[in-house]
Amino acid sequence: MHRKTIYADYAATTPVSEEAFSAMLPYFLQSFGNPSAIYCYGLEAKQAVEEARRTIAGIIGARVNEVFFTSGGTEADNWALYATAEARKSRGRHIITTSIEHSAVYYPAQKLEKQGFEVTYLPVDKYGLVDPEELERAIREDTILVSIMMANNEIGTILNIEGLSGRAKAHKVLFHTDAVQAVGHIPVNVSELGVDMLSLSAHKFGGPKGVGALYIKVGNILPPLISGGGQEKGRRSGTSNVPGIVGMAAALREAADKMEQNMKKTAALRDRLIEGVLKIPYARLTGDPVNRLPGIASFVFEGLESMPIVSSLNEEGICVSSGSACSAGSGEPSRVLKAAGYPDELAGASLRFSLSERNTQEEVDYIVEKLHTVLETLRSKKNASMGAV
Amino acid sequence: MHRKTIYADYAATTPVSEEAFSAMLPYFLQSFGNPSAIYCYGLEAKQAVEEARRTIAGIIGARVNEVFFTSGGTEADNWALYATAEARKSRGRHIITTSIEHSAVYYPAQKLEKQGFEVTYLPVDKYGLVDPEELERAIREDTILVSIMMANNEIGTILNIEGLSGRAKAHKVLFHTDAVQAVGHIPVNVSELGVDMLSLSAHKFGGPKGVGALYIKVGNILPPLISGGGQEKGRRSGTSNVPGIVGMAAALREAADKMEQNMKKTAALRDRLIEGVLKIPYARLTGDPVNRLPGIASFVFEGLESMPIVSSLNEEGICVSSGSACSAGSGEPSRVLKAAGYPDELAGASLRFSLSERNTQEEVDYIVEKLHTVLETLRSKKNASMGAV
Repeated sequence: MHRKTIYADYAATTPVSEEAFSAMLPYFLQSFGNPSAIYCYGLEAKQAVEEARRTIAGIIGARVNEVFFTSGGTEADNWALYATAEARKSRGRHIITTSIEHSAVYYPAQKLEKQGFEVTYLPVDKYGLVDPEELERAIREDTILVSIMMANNEIGTILNIEGLSGRAKAHKVLFHTDAVQAVGHIPVNVSELGVDMLSLSAHKFGGPKGVGALYIKVGNILPPLISGGGQEKGRRSGTSNVPGIVGMAAALREAADKMEQNMKKTAALRDRLIEGVLKIPYARLTGDPVNRLPGIASFVFEGLESMPIVSSLNEEGICVSSGSACSAGSGEPSRVLKAAGYPDELAGASLRFSLSERNTQEEVDYIVEKLHTVLETLRSKKNASMGAV
Repeated sequence: MHRKTIYADYAATTPVSEEAFSAMLPYFLQSFGNPSAIYCYGLEAKQAVEEARRTIAGIIGARVNEVFFTSGGTEADNWALYATAEARKSRGRHIITTSIEHSAVYYPAQKLEKQGFEVTYLPVDKYGLVDPEELERAIREDTILVSIMMANNEIGTILNIEGLSGRAKAHKVLFHTDAVQAVGHIPVNVSELGVDMLSLSAHKFGGPKGVGALYIKVGNILPPLISGGGQEKGRRSGTSNVPGIVGMAAALREAADKMEQNMKKTAALRDRLIEGVLKIPYARLTGDPVNRLPGIASFVFEGLESMPIVSSLNEEGICVSSGSACSAGSGEPSRVLKAAGYPDELAGASLRFSLSERNTQEEVDYIVEKLHTVLETLRSKKNASMGAV
């Protein structure tokens, strides 16, 4: 076995940061109260939750009463779509999204279609970008929601949300963005973005799994997806996940404070990786060459399949994904790459590296070196087996 | 201020047990992988999640593929109701529940009513028990679901689920039970109970907040409430909350192992508390005198209101709820007590003590002593102010 593990799958999930971890600890054993209980430990817990809400709101440029805690990005995405559909169905039943959304938006959209809503899936260009003119043309009298992701989880492209949200706004259509891959990694400000709803997930930026949030602009009254005890001002019931919420806020604080330096370091590592990988024959970078997340470098390798590459790299101690973590097990060609115009055989040969400031140049060089070897071996095996036929 | 805090609100939430806490720790910083990632840290995380599933399934008498992780009891309850309604609406649109359910069942039921479902809220007797004959009479040709809680969170009554589920089964109607207050506290076995769905929540038995599960009997295909990446065999998407799930399983293991001794100790404390409190003039025990959770002792105090009692006890260092934690802030008379036949003035004067094996006789005696004093003071204040008028 390998001596050291190189983690290059930070877009799938991150370890909890030391700061976030320390912040969470007191809320498991000591300040363990139920924030809905008005006394004793309940009050401490409630204060911690509200402090976390203030922190997160401040960082994303929201008001404190616009941040609602959820169990993660998936719930936040589901909530934004289902609740908007429910609240606005009397005004119209048309929703616009893109062909490269995460499944947490894509499947709710599909389900809403079955319930009588019409959904337009906007095309993207070869980089994964949406043309604002295309959005403009798609907006109809009965359009109630546009949901477009801020940054793509597979190819790393950062979309032009400001340019897109303006088009929706001009037609008084609500705009939601799944910013799960963006928050904590690049500057995200809800008012600059001009969005009405924004989803985020703690474990993508050094917070714990099982917690996220939906920003809901004041005045946009969304019915709850999950109802009961009336937590989160009646919008999301269930006992607040106090340690999770506190950990999320601490992680985001840390990510925001160090963002400039982290972006710089991570982007330099990413560019070094891209430069190294593109020297490999048949390797192609996917996603936008410029507008991309600092950590994500994704490629396709003509003539090969993802799984054996991922598997071989793993044997060398390198953790990496084929496409997104969520669809990694499926073996299907990437929906995102297909939308970006890649043929099936290439869309099934994708590899996503996602780096962070925790990675080093030496790790990147090791990755490039091993990838060379792995791909050569796989190609000669393939050629041999083809020769045998 | 008081020297020591006595926590007597374990039904609202519990501290995380030391064992659960230790079990969770490695999954924050070290084995932090995304269980959907097929390699590296992902595999460890996946194995931990599946081991937790086996543990929980084993303890509640379920098969391993019948346990689905959620963000808590509220989500599990919501899911059971909404998904059954969605899956079975072509067979019928009638649902039966009770008038004493937790809001996590009650509000979804109300919402389904608005969506065209008919809901029968079965009455309860003065102890909070449902008559199986009453259920039998309520079942119709178009009944698709019965949802009756296993143990009530406010008054502690344990309902006769076996007797009730049999009636539903005879008519091929699905049976769900909200067992959030029962699991970890009294024996819970899904096959003995004869239920098709059962909700549980980790933080009620020494596990962390933000995680729970829904037992779904094999063959009962429920559509997801939250969809996306396809986790939990496509039934509940969102990156698995690995530390939370591991902590829940460890807490339940511990609770199950110590159940007999914990029940005995806690029930003895509860009975001591009841005996002491009932010596106070105008104090009345609510709930079933025999079939009640080991930890819950709930009372009404004629002529007084809950809030000043809770507040005064808090000043003495005693943490206790008026009714349930979830409705504690509302100031409304308890829906549960009203259903049990208490007039509004009594239903607004309830106090719930919920003990655990962590409490002591000395604490119970202190609670009784202070409650005496607090109630006397409140009564003389009240009499004085009435005299002044």
